[in-house]
Amino acid sequence: MTGRLIGVGVGPGDPGLLTLNAIDALKAADVVAYFAKAGNASNARTIVAAHLNGAEELPLLYPVTTEIPKEDTGYRDAITAFYDSSAQDVAAHLDDGRTVAVLSEGDPLFYGSYMHLHVRLATRYPTEVIAGVTGMSGCWSAIATPMTQGDDVFTVLPATLPEYELERRFADADAAVVMKIGRHLPKVRRALDRAGRLDRAIYVERGTMANAAVMPLVDKLDGCAPYFAIVLVPGWESRT
Amino acid sequence: MTGRLIGVGVGPGDPGLLTLNAIDALKAADVVAYFAKAGNASNARTIVAAHLNGAEELPLLYPVTTEIPKEDTGYRDAITAFYDSSAQDVAAHLDDGRTVAVLSEGDPLFYGSYMHLHVRLATRYPTEVIAGVTGMSGCWSAIATPMTQGDDVFTVLPATLPEYELERRFADADAAVVMKIGRHLPKVRRALDRAGRLDRAIYVERGTMANAAVMPLVDKLDGCAPYFAIVLVPGWESRT
Repeated sequence: MTGRLIGVGVGPGDPGLLTLNAIDALKAADVVAYFAKAGNASNARTIVAAHLNGAEELPLLYPVTTEIPKEDTGYRDAITAFYDSSAQDVAAHLDDGRTVAVLSEGDPLFYGSYMHLHVRLATRYPTEVIAGVTGMSGCWSAIATPMTQGDDVFTVLPATLPEYELERRFADADAAVVMKIGRHLPKVRRALDRAGRLDRAIYVERGTMANAAVMPLVDKLDGCAPYFAIVLVPGWESRT
Repeated sequence: MTGRLIGVGVGPGDPGLLTLNAIDALKAADVVAYFAKAGNASNARTIVAAHLNGAEELPLLYPVTTEIPKEDTGYRDAITAFYDSSAQDVAAHLDDGRTVAVLSEGDPLFYGSYMHLHVRLATRYPTEVIAGVTGMSGCWSAIATPMTQGDDVFTVLPATLPEYELERRFADADAAVVMKIGRHLPKVRRALDRAGRLDRAIYVERGTMANAAVMPLVDKLDGCAPYFAIVLVPGWESRT
């Protein structure tokens, strides 16, 4: 009998946004695994800290950060080898009959790192995924801003897109979220301005944390946005 | 002192996907309000049934169903008057100092009916919104299907869009969710086929319930899809 693999969504940051199923999975787990940068605490582990009941912990430490361009061949090779060896580490526990909960900030199957283990292991072991509250839901709820209603078209865009692509897509959606802002802030601002949507855009940094920074994007200075900042462009303009 | 308004996301259907904050809000509430069709049980109330501790209940019963075309003036007038009077009912409790939790399936600010109360009341009363797991996260997690990764562009589309608009947008996004399928199923299928994405599309009915129906969209017969069925078009084609 092998163990079970459980991808556990732990939500956007507030431990109160953990689900009952996530807490049950942590209780059932023999091993709790999580990705982190070497030398940094895992955000996901911090979120669940109060619910860890002596399970073995398996930190999976990135050899490089996600801020290096993904097009770089050296980066791709290093990160693929890392996911392969991480999957082997998890598989060794599963082969020994231990249930492994892999923590994932937000929702595991929505831009989550857990998926790199899932695609390597889910065909070989009994696997379950526990949905979580996404980071973007955490952000717009923290600032109580309606995002989408009725027949709105909603889109999620990476800030890495070319400026003309951002502009075209802002003009083409009722509501949008832009992720991975970082050094792309001036470009995102220009694209929103030309699409006529800048006045609605909201800049959010550490959205669900006590030290959140939230402001209209027009008021945000260029040059100091962290990688994980996001921009919200709410839809539902009629609000009736 | 007025009471507090709390928009409570109760997740996609599984009571295990309630968050700790949602459960705390139900404990704190003097009144629990929820939208429902007249004559039908409220799905949101069913999800939280085990956590209702004798709070007063305030059902808000739609005078018409959401399946009538939104362009119809009679529908618009009836539904606007309904939201106005529902907000007045909630406000009466808030004025008397009672805290009112308004249940919302999924996430309150993401296509949720709670927002119709929020825009009428949040400027007048202390208001809090508790994020929830969305219906779409519940669906793709229930079938353990990776949706988006890295720099994927993700979009949510209503099936009510014209066929050429659906086709264009399917071709323009890495991953998509189509909501409110119902009688639009044949149109959605044709649009996906012409965009070259039909082979990846998954049809999901009652995604997070025990009687879920999940199948490749190519295998789904036309003519029998409920209004709340959705279609998932997963991204992350490389899966590395």
